[in-house]
Amino acid sequence: MPRSGRVRTVAETASASTAGRANVGAMKSHTEYLWMNVPTRRAFVNITDEVAAAVEKSGVREGMVLVNAMHISASVFINDAESGLHADYDAWLERLAPHAPTSQYRHNDTGEDNADAHLKRQVMGREVVIAITKGALDFGPWEQVFYGEFDGRRRKRVLVKVIGE
Amino acid sequence: MPRSGRVRTVAETASASTAGRANVGAMKSHTEYLWMNVPTRRAFVNITDEVAAAVEKSGVREGMVLVNAMHISASVFINDAESGLHADYDAWLERLAPHAPTSQYRHNDTGEDNADAHLKRQVMGREVVIAITKGALDFGPWEQVFYGEFDGRRRKRVLVKVIGE
Amino acid sequence: MPRSGRVRTVAETASASTAGRANVGAMKSHTEYLWMNVPTRRAFVNITDEVAAAVEKSGVREGMVLVNAMHISASVFINDAESGLHADYDAWLERLAPHAPTSQYRHNDTGEDNADAHLKRQVMGREVVIAITKGALDFGPWEQVFYGEFDGRRRKRVLVKVIGE
Repeated sequence: MPRSGRVRTVAETASASTAGRANVGAMKSHTEYLWMNVPTRRAFVNITDEVAAAVEKSGVREGMVLVNAMHISASVFINDAESGLHADYDAWLERLAPHAPTSQYRHNDTGEDNADAHLKRQVMGREVVIAITKGALDFGPWEQVFYGEFDGRRRKRVLVKVIGE
Repeated sequence: MPRSGRVRTVAETASASTAGRANVGAMKSHTEYLWMNVPTRRAFVNITDEVAAAVEKSGVREGMVLVNAMHISASVFINDAESGLHADYDAWLERLAPHAPTSQYRHNDTGEDNADAHLKRQVMGREVVIAITKGALDFGPWEQVFYGEFDGRRRKRVLVKVIGE
Repeated sequence: MPRSGRVRTVAETASASTAGRANVGAMKSHTEYLWMNVPTRRAFVNITDEVAAAVEKSGVREGMVLVNAMHISASVFINDAESGLHADYDAWLERLAPHAPTSQYRHNDTGEDNADAHLKRQVMGREVVIAITKGALDFGPWEQVFYGEFDGRRRKRVLVKVIGE
């Protein structure tokens, strides 16, 4: 592993902040709930357009948007919109936290069969927080927002909360 | 894996945001520190009530609350308040990142024996950000906030930071 | 595992919030982009000073700073500035999601060889959100911010977004 000293970082102040002056304004907020209904046990669903629409509707120019699964056997995460990668995620998560045999998990003693979904969700994460700059999602070239379902076949919600100015 | 196109998402604007109009107000903030003292090496502690109390005290109606472990061998995460699941998490994390033999980790060459705790904490996460809507934690039906201790038997802190309007 | 009831949490209101009164003010924001250029495939780079400098430049006294990788084969996370631990992370991530053989991943059928980097990034996380209290990063004794590169040898960006009052 190279040591940190070998890498130089260069900070570049966004043009939105004029020469060391921060933006100042009144605070706004906006809340939406996305209903998901995945017909299979597991799936990844691209929700980038829905999140972008909520940000636009909020009128926030500079701020943050929180996007989180409201259910504890599902995830929201940011990665690539590439079906091969999604197949890799699915196989990898199943290797790290297998669904079967369901009897290996104490949570399933309660009558559930979804303990693996609670484990998979911790690897992929509950939420993302995305910067809003000049009224839009401040994304790198490949960033897309996904809902990760690990125990589907029922209605669940994703929360989108926008705050800023 | 089903493709994204097979799932329809429906956005529902929160009633707190009147017909496409975002809330606007002055910004407030509030900070609390929770002292934890877990008598064993590992444990999960439900801190939902403490987080909810901090939000109420803040007076924030619309915003976000950040809850994070201030120590790097501990986590804050959101999942189920079910003891069987917590036993599953403990066994699973110990399988992914075993405590013993402690000599397998270079971090422990420094005299520590807690390298595994730093690994487990990355799986479970450092922090959660929770939406505040109408003055309360905007939670799904089963969401509860937990402190995950992976190297206990000493005092550590959790930070609760509320911002909003 | 001990039950939660055995642990007592004590909330301590920050002196910045005067006796149950939250701070109130106008909202500010500030945005910076850090350019990274890691000469090897994998490395961890300490970016704490750059994040602290962005917070100072913002003029924000109470708020939050989001720091995230803008590329989907890299991470931003908080942990220890200890080279033994970084070696442990590298070996552990390679065990959880090996780079070779590259043919084991469907993502690599597209011509890429970095599927493992997309998996490693999910374990270590995309982003951190850090509280700002009295104008500084509100950190525990050992918290440091790192950029985790899992597919380097090219320029990538990290976003630093400050909001608060």
